[in-house]
Amino acid sequence: MIWYKNNNSDIVVSTRIRLARNVDKTPFPNALKDTKEVTEKIKNAVLGGNSTLAKDFDFIDLDNTPLIRKQELAEEHLISPVMCEGKGKSVMISKDRTMSIMLMEEDHIRLQIIKDGFALDEAYSLASKVDDVIEENITYAFDNDFGYLTACPTNTGTGMRASVMMHLPALTMTENINRVISSAGSLGIEVRGLYGEGTKAYGNLYQISNRITLGLSESQVIEKLTNVVNQIVDMETKARNMLKEKNYDVIADRLFRSYGTLKYARSVSSSEAKSLLSDVMLGQSLGIIPKESKIAPLECMVLSEPALVCDGKELSPNERDKKRAELIRNNI
Amino acid sequence: MIWYKNNNSDIVVSTRIRLARNVDKTPFPNALKDTKEVTEKIKNAVLGGNSTLAKDFDFIDLDNTPLIRKQELAEEHLISPVMCEGKGKSVMISKDRTMSIMLMEEDHIRLQIIKDGFALDEAYSLASKVDDVIEENITYAFDNDFGYLTACPTNTGTGMRASVMMHLPALTMTENINRVISSAGSLGIEVRGLYGEGTKAYGNLYQISNRITLGLSESQVIEKLTNVVNQIVDMETKARNMLKEKNYDVIADRLFRSYGTLKYARSVSSSEAKSLLSDVMLGQSLGIIPKESKIAPLECMVLSEPALVCDGKELSPNERDKKRAELIRNNI
Repeated sequence: MIWYKNNNSDIVVSTRIRLARNVDKTPFPNALKDTKEVTEKIKNAVLGGNSTLAKDFDFIDLDNTPLIRKQELAEEHLISPVMCEGKGKSVMISKDRTMSIMLMEEDHIRLQIIKDGFALDEAYSLASKVDDVIEENITYAFDNDFGYLTACPTNTGTGMRASVMMHLPALTMTENINRVISSAGSLGIEVRGLYGEGTKAYGNLYQISNRITLGLSESQVIEKLTNVVNQIVDMETKARNMLKEKNYDVIADRLFRSYGTLKYARSVSSSEAKSLLSDVMLGQSLGIIPKESKIAPLECMVLSEPALVCDGKELSPNERDKKRAELIRNNI
Repeated sequence: MIWYKNNNSDIVVSTRIRLARNVDKTPFPNALKDTKEVTEKIKNAVLGGNSTLAKDFDFIDLDNTPLIRKQELAEEHLISPVMCEGKGKSVMISKDRTMSIMLMEEDHIRLQIIKDGFALDEAYSLASKVDDVIEENITYAFDNDFGYLTACPTNTGTGMRASVMMHLPALTMTENINRVISSAGSLGIEVRGLYGEGTKAYGNLYQISNRITLGLSESQVIEKLTNVVNQIVDMETKARNMLKEKNYDVIADRLFRSYGTLKYARSVSSSEAKSLLSDVMLGQSLGIIPKESKIAPLECMVLSEPALVCDGKELSPNERDKKRAELIRNNI
């Protein structure tokens, strides 16, 4: 299932496993004059094999893709934002849109699995299978001491980044989020706002991921991340219950006002939409706001992103804000 | 009709005529040791006569009225706020609640007619009739040079204050209201915010009234006030059309957000309610917000006033704000 579709997850929104791989004896993308040959090689390794899994992918040459369509893919988290820029890049996306293989990002291959909810083991197992299919035809750059070699040394080793997207409105509201960030950090786990600058996280969505790729096996990383995520789930749950029990009137008023604004506003910016939709998510999760939305608030958040909201049309920022308000108003 | 009931007036909300009268050869209320005798005299003058008009009044002894009920009367504009305090005061109110005769306010008699909409002549004619009924049995303090004598010299002469309540959101939003206030002032017409302190008028409701009671006849005052009110109506209409034509998106978004907030908020203060309801009034008048309210926004504004919203119950400020939000949410 596409991670953001019909997603009514309370706290853990989605899970992502990303593997960085490079073709042996070939310069990394930033040092590669022509990416065609390597791209063909990897494309054939995936699409040309006998695996049913691999046959499921569609190849998209990003050089021939309009910018707005690339931005849409980035907003769906199927490619990273840097893939929207530069030349010689491409991506293979599975028909169910849960797997993507970026070519010529920072590394030759960035294989990524996204699942809705909390599913690290399942996502890792799927990533491994796709990784094996590719490895049948490609020799990876690998060092017996260091493991998988990558363009940036922070990825060397397993080449794996495991991350979990969490909705943490109560920890943010009660200002406990900074304590969470620093204590996770001391365990080698990074917590960062998915949107917004500095400490402000629009939508109260945070990405929790491993910082370390060297010296720990994949399963050790996943175990450690699982423990930290479970602890944060516990803290967020307690913070939500406290808000509901001790501050019901204030919190219900705030969440309903956000709901009312989204139900009636005629123009909403992207950052405001995220904040208000986060309130609706919290309100529905606490049983304060009825779950009557045609589209779950998280899906509204993704579908109202700047490129996706345009639906292929060229819109000015004002027109986009009106279109976003309309989309949310009709579906929340 | 009660001035605020089913009142969908666009700009001129209501009209009020107030006459100040005193009983001849009797100290003004502030110098009167015992108000009983004068009160009885006036009460009998009104209720004891043969006039059908006068028979219509109910007598309320404010000494035996709980404070909250007195505050309700003040919020309905049937008594002035000072009538809630002190001893020896009473009021006679007509069954249709458009006429009230306050006894022992600043003067022995403050006769007041309130009509919905713009109806200065009609209100004055009714005030004169009631005035005549009282004068059949009471000799007023009257001087051939000065006219009716009153406790405060600013009322001496006709003893009449004619005023019109206007909803001026567009002139306020475009900051033209200060120009209106000063140019009306130069004509002896006072414009003041009905609610709020300083220049801030919650609800964008203004009271436009004559400052002069001496040297002009009643009909001259009414004619002058009519001219000024018509000019302000014209200015407000132009300002509204300009907002709608030049700033439709911004204004529609703002007005709908206010509507959405009132439709969903769980707690609303009195001043916020007035501002948001003023937006809904403007939105409905401009045809932006559909007129689907069970109770017109102006009526919601009055019914959600601090005392009226309590509906006879003792409520804390927090409970009142919740009750107000509920009342408006269910009726707007």
